Amino acid sequence: MLDRFKVPEEDKVYVPVEKITKVTENILKSSGVSEDGAKNSTSVLIGNDLRGVETHGVSNGLRLYVEKYASGQYNSSPDIKIIRESATTATIDGDNGLGAEIGPLAMDMAIEKAEKYGMGCVVVSNTGHLAGCGYYPLQAVEKDMIGQAMTSGGAGLTVPTWGSEPILGTNPVAWAAPADEMPPFLFDIATTQIASNKIGLALRTGAKILPGWITDKDGEPILEEVDAPQRSGRHGESNYHLLPFGGTRENGSHKGFGLGMVVEIMTNELSGMGPAPVLHHEGSDMFAAYSIDAFTDVKKFKKDMDLLLNKIVDSKPASDYERVVYAGLMESEEYTKRSQEGIPYHKEVIEWFENYCSEIGIDCELR
Amino acid sequence: MLDRFKVPEEDKVYVPVEKITKVTENILKSSGVSEDGAKNSTSVLIGNDLRGVETHGVSNGLRLYVEKYASGQYNSSPDIKIIRESATTATIDGDNGLGAEIGPLAMDMAIEKAEKYGMGCVVVSNTGHLAGCGYYPLQAVEKDMIGQAMTSGGAGLTVPTWGSEPILGTNPVAWAAPADEMPPFLFDIATTQIASNKIGLALRTGAKILPGWITDKDGEPILEEVDAPQRSGRHGESNYHLLPFGGTRENGSHKGFGLGMVVEIMTNELSGMGPAPVLHHEGSDMFAAYSIDAFTDVKKFKKDMDLLLNKIVDSKPASDYERVVYAGLMESEEYTKRSQEGIPYHKEVIEWFENYCSEIGIDCELR
Repeated sequence: MLDRFKVPEEDKVYVPVEKITKVTENILKSSGVSEDGAKNSTSVLIGNDLRGVETHGVSNGLRLYVEKYASGQYNSSPDIKIIRESATTATIDGDNGLGAEIGPLAMDMAIEKAEKYGMGCVVVSNTGHLAGCGYYPLQAVEKDMIGQAMTSGGAGLTVPTWGSEPILGTNPVAWAAPADEMPPFLFDIATTQIASNKIGLALRTGAKILPGWITDKDGEPILEEVDAPQRSGRHGESNYHLLPFGGTRENGSHKGFGLGMVVEIMTNELSGMGPAPVLHHEGSDMFAAYSIDAFTDVKKFKKDMDLLLNKIVDSKPASDYERVVYAGLMESEEYTKRSQEGIPYHKEVIEWFENYCSEIGIDCELR
Repeated sequence: MLDRFKVPEEDKVYVPVEKITKVTENILKSSGVSEDGAKNSTSVLIGNDLRGVETHGVSNGLRLYVEKYASGQYNSSPDIKIIRESATTATIDGDNGLGAEIGPLAMDMAIEKAEKYGMGCVVVSNTGHLAGCGYYPLQAVEKDMIGQAMTSGGAGLTVPTWGSEPILGTNPVAWAAPADEMPPFLFDIATTQIASNKIGLALRTGAKILPGWITDKDGEPILEEVDAPQRSGRHGESNYHLLPFGGTRENGSHKGFGLGMVVEIMTNELSGMGPAPVLHHEGSDMFAAYSIDAFTDVKKFKKDMDLLLNKIVDSKPASDYERVVYAGLMESEEYTKRSQEGIPYHKEVIEWFENYCSEIGIDCELR
């Protein structure tokens, strides 16, 4: 994550992992979520916070989820059903449960199929926010597999290359692969120039939005640095829209738009939900696992990954930089650091926790 | 493809598909390639030319292949072996055959596995140039499947984000999915700002290289418009290197670099060849097929694809553009047009064909 999105030092409150985990689980259970469901969702959210992906941790997510549980938009006790299944595939109806609750189960299912048949892929329809994609492929990595996840939560945000109307969502995708001694490769991106949640973070940290990151309300790219806008309206009526990664056609925005389309197709069309840009539903998710053992020797694969990852880390940086990294390395370092020192939340986030817990009458020991 | 890479009108020679197909097959057979092998490779190359992807057609490719067959670097009669196999996966040793000869067979195998088990994935090691990825996923589309292909031909070309040494190749990837009445979605990209072959094309057409597309020999990004450089040297000794798509970190080059790494891992590490940036081999390929029927109703999927694709095509373009397109639409239009009018080759390409055929003593009826 670029420095501009990080919480300023003076606003940080460090919270130990066990404390934030316990309070988050209790908040979800107070919303009616089951013990196992709360454990799953919390593991995803805190996992993201530990890797430094606070855009998809408790800061932005939790307050939204409890509101949606309260309003009935999310189902806190979903009846999760398999609606189609083959040796390697399954299509799940999530019954409006939170994506982050169902995701770990769906990825486990894909892994189980990959153990038996070499590959597994599970799509989940009728489900809420997945809290990013990065957590799930790491479940596969734990089992010496390559993992992949995609989600299409929320269409009507991103303007296609050459277009002016917001059509796709931020449509993130992640892949992960294990190494032997090096931290795993974990590539976890939105297919837009900037993740939607990062605009929320920028509002909180005062960060600027760079040229070519967003468009104005008419879909024309904003090509100078601006303050983060406060979103008003959705589905074509917002005061700004997102650009696919690349930004402009000459700089390759058709690559971001195309990969966003892949995500839309592999989630909404493959799960049978139908196109989110047309039907305006909350989207769906896809999880896949590839058993490395089905293709090659696992030990050799992991040693080869070490060779590859070390080649990158040992290479000479460009003149303005201190080192070269691969996707997942800094996240792994952050994970280790935050596991020891606690997770640095913005003080405003801690205040929300304390106020909300007090409101619903549960303990909130964070400081 | 951007206009700057297209063959100028006055340099075009239009050649009917049957004529260029016959001559290309005959040239390959003269190099010792089998009847079936020549048919496969030619179908890939002319398929690319028909879709307007002349970077990966006969213009740049064929002269290189015949040289490599002649020097023994490519094996014209490869003994293709399966070295590991599971219900859904296979790892093939290509015995140094041309990638474009083996690719169609490998994708057929993935499709056959997906028909039985829902998914199929085949990786091919020890193989030469694949001629891009776009052709292969369309094989899956013909069978109502989603197709995917990746190749890591040639490392030592692309500088990582924050780095200065060229490490990865251009590492292209493609996905395709069928629709009902609309032309199929086909997303086919290099994970660099510009495909290597496009620099060859730019040299031929006189096109300029845009800011942020390449670096100088020391790995520093060139941030102004320059003439296309003539490459000298490889593996770190070139006079220029490529940048991952995005160009700079602030504009998201970590996304191009990360996707390039996914391709490296899913090809070289998964096939057991080991990291091309370390071992400097010619790379390997990956082909995957997802049976739509294993996930959802095929008819509904294709109708939903029509809804999605029409939503994009019917949306309002940005102020400087005439229409909005999705990946694969213009390629499909070009395919129809070129099937009727012939394929427009640069006159210099036709001269190469005529000279080469005369040299090896075969017919060359193209004009």
